[in-house]
Amino acid sequence: MAYAAHNLNDTIVALATPPGVGAIGVIRLSGEDAIDIVDQVFHGKGLKEQPTHTIHFGAIRDDSGRILDEVLVSLFVAPKSYTGENVVEVSCHGSNYIIQEVIQLFIEKGARTAQPGEFTLRAFLNGRMDLSQAEAVADLIASSSKASHSVAMQQMRGGFSDEIKKLRQQLLDFASLIELELDFAEEDVEFANRKELKKLVEKIQSVLRALIQSFKLGNVLKHGVNTVIAGRPNAGKSTLLNALLNEERAIVSEIEGTTRDTIEEVLNIKGVQFRIIDTAGIREAEDAIEAIGVEKTMQKVQQSALLVYVFDVARTQPAELQADLAKLIHDNVQVLVVANKMDLNPYTKFEHYFGEEETGRLGEREAERAGDTPTHPLTPSPRHPVTKEAWVPISAIHSMNIEYLKEKLYEAVLSSDMVLESTVVANARHYEALQKANDSLDRVMQGLSEEVTSDFVAMDIRQALHFLGEITGEISTEDLLGNIFSRFCIGK
Amino acid sequence: MAYAAHNLNDTIVALATPPGVGAIGVIRLSGEDAIDIVDQVFHGKGLKEQPTHTIHFGAIRDDSGRILDEVLVSLFVAPKSYTGENVVEVSCHGSNYIIQEVIQLFIEKGARTAQPGEFTLRAFLNGRMDLSQAEAVADLIASSSKASHSVAMQQMRGGFSDEIKKLRQQLLDFASLIELELDFAEEDVEFANRKELKKLVEKIQSVLRALIQSFKLGNVLKHGVNTVIAGRPNAGKSTLLNALLNEERAIVSEIEGTTRDTIEEVLNIKGVQFRIIDTAGIREAEDAIEAIGVEKTMQKVQQSALLVYVFDVARTQPAELQADLAKLIHDNVQVLVVANKMDLNPYTKFEHYFGEEETGRLGEREAERAGDTPTHPLTPSPRHPVTKEAWVPISAIHSMNIEYLKEKLYEAVLSSDMVLESTVVANARHYEALQKANDSLDRVMQGLSEEVTSDFVAMDIRQALHFLGEITGEISTEDLLGNIFSRFCIGK
Repeated sequence: MAYAAHNLNDTIVALATPPGVGAIGVIRLSGEDAIDIVDQVFHGKGLKEQPTHTIHFGAIRDDSGRILDEVLVSLFVAPKSYTGENVVEVSCHGSNYIIQEVIQLFIEKGARTAQPGEFTLRAFLNGRMDLSQAEAVADLIASSSKASHSVAMQQMRGGFSDEIKKLRQQLLDFASLIELELDFAEEDVEFANRKELKKLVEKIQSVLRALIQSFKLGNVLKHGVNTVIAGRPNAGKSTLLNALLNEERAIVSEIEGTTRDTIEEVLNIKGVQFRIIDTAGIREAEDAIEAIGVEKTMQKVQQSALLVYVFDVARTQPAELQADLAKLIHDNVQVLVVANKMDLNPYTKFEHYFGEEETGRLGEREAERAGDTPTHPLTPSPRHPVTKEAWVPISAIHSMNIEYLKEKLYEAVLSSDMVLESTVVANARHYEALQKANDSLDRVMQGLSEEVTSDFVAMDIRQALHFLGEITGEISTEDLLGNIFSRFCIGK
Repeated sequence: MAYAAHNLNDTIVALATPPGVGAIGVIRLSGEDAIDIVDQVFHGKGLKEQPTHTIHFGAIRDDSGRILDEVLVSLFVAPKSYTGENVVEVSCHGSNYIIQEVIQLFIEKGARTAQPGEFTLRAFLNGRMDLSQAEAVADLIASSSKASHSVAMQQMRGGFSDEIKKLRQQLLDFASLIELELDFAEEDVEFANRKELKKLVEKIQSVLRALIQSFKLGNVLKHGVNTVIAGRPNAGKSTLLNALLNEERAIVSEIEGTTRDTIEEVLNIKGVQFRIIDTAGIREAEDAIEAIGVEKTMQKVQQSALLVYVFDVARTQPAELQADLAKLIHDNVQVLVVANKMDLNPYTKFEHYFGEEETGRLGEREAERAGDTPTHPLTPSPRHPVTKEAWVPISAIHSMNIEYLKEKLYEAVLSSDMVLESTVVANARHYEALQKANDSLDRVMQGLSEEVTSDFVAMDIRQALHFLGEITGEISTEDLLGNIFSRFCIGK
């Protein structure tokens, strides 16, 4: 247990800004002695007499009197700080040498190096934020697109956790009543109104189910949409990728530090990231021209949410196209069929490849869509994977209809911008806890309808309370906290 | 002229912390509208009513109301700021996405991106620091060792420029008097006391000469000591390099972001950096085993301040050693002769290779050293390059005597720690201006002793004033400023 080994009463210190050379670097201290420690080496005003939220200029000197740097010191007196403890931020010149020396000096004066995420852990433990908000801080720092930023920001500002806390409190009140019944078990009294309990559980479950459903989208918004571009040799996959990334590359490179997986390209459409896996490397598999290296491509498609199948309208027969799609498409992948080289065969139509009868099925599907329970946008119709809506005629080499294709890619994930504004769950831990809480509540409902004894109902409610409490951190263990905060960067 | 193209009345904005992901990133604005611009998008207290040196928590929202981040805003009201203008520092979550969005928003509200070094340029133009201090800011940020840090810090805190300014003012007073004489040229009056002028010029020249002499050392402290390790194949060069770097590698790697030239290793001895060029790649030159690839090694040695010649005591004949050294040594290089593999021949002595008579010469040299005018430590005796002092017996493979070798390396540059405390010039521009000023003053002295007419003396004094003024920036041109500040990073 990394966290158990460290005393949370220590004053901690860490560089809060990225390493590297810059104009300034900010060293942060938190803990009871933070102001004291800095005051010992700061030559300027006496820091202990200064009010919170003020800034002071002076020099940091070591014991030999050597000036390490001229700095600005920002004071945050407990509890009005990020962590709820005394916090001092020291803004140094951004030299690695200076920063190491100054941190070392603070350590000599009694601070210790912060563990990853320890500032935010302390903020959580001191009630400055709940656990899901603390987790959102790390997501916010990692956010690299409008979508992932929105999801993290929403979560950091309370998001669904406020509602969860409220519902959990109501459930907790019922749990107390039911447990009271247990004390009077022999008298067969009912302190908890079963009808009201049922109503509450239904209400909670409807919230939980919506949140659980939002996870698929939330995950996509947070991590991007895994997208495979596949197609036979010379269908124009690479040309298409270049056309898609053309402007995008410039935008991505403006934002320094963006990490890129070597086999992926990242395309940003209206704030949503598409992580594009080009299967170009797969296509030339020995003797596999006919088979378009289906094995490997299949694997990639299995791991993806979106398949962009590209074919050459001048050379591809309907049977070939249908055979490829039959092999590549599976239940959880959304498909776009990109008819490339339309400049060569400008009158190519969807019907030529899929026949008139498909339009009928399309009609069915549209009817279904118009119904009360729309399927998730990422879930294709199981009955027929390719609809006319999935048909995108382009000419990659002439960058023709590329913007339309981008629209289609975006729509495959999000039916409208509205979704970005509604509450989504993007954290796998929350998703799991929500599911477990919902399962427990299923059992509560079942128990209530079967009129089982109070002790069983009470146990299931306790479980639901536990899982809901894990989301907000009202229930937490050292293991859980260690697991969450050790993933943070040091200094946060 | 990059600087002329930009209006210095604009409010400027830039990221002040290194790019990359970290807990926080600090965006800095400077200019009349800095507080106004941030206030337009900051949702918290009204910033315009807040006192200087205070910190405020709130949210940054764009025009659509979307929250870009929750931030801390630090206010510095003119003239109490780094630049002397209104300065605002916005401490965001350290996500590249957020930082780009927030900077973009400030630009939409009227700020423009800062030029490299523009914050410090403004600080200089607004009289917050002189030019040599401004230059020291960049040196301080780039400092990566105790020595380079000390030199930069000393310069930033006034260093020699205060003294230069005072002496220049005195010289300026004389110049005025002499120029007054020119107005009364026909009357042959002397307003300026020639004797006092001579005394002042002598005083200034003694200061200038000391500073000029310090440059060689200053340059070494700032940039490190270029050191070549040379020797015949299997003398143990690579083993020696590894032994030297052994602990050091760990220390260097602790400081992230340290840049390393691929062909160099950096060794830090008591705060001084030694940039070690391993000639291992040279040694295998075709058929050149006898010649030890002298050509290329010679070139490297020519560019270096220090030559570490390594030989194998078990296999090297005195004649070979002396032949190698005769080829490699030149006037400006300091030499250490490293007798390696002493574990094989533990009784090998200096005298075996250089003879008893060398000791006599050594005696002479010691006598010379004890005299009044010590030679610069980096300048070897021209009469005999290798003295007993330069003899270092080691066993690289057993790490034997490596610490002693490090001492020797350090002593080759600095005779004692004292030097780090005295004023040194480390900036090539200052060095050049000091030399030119000194040359002009030589002519003044010559003119005075030859009793030339006042107008000639006046002209030479004006020249000296000009060059001295360039150091502190009392005299500056746009070219000069552009040249200096364009080397800064953006955000400083």
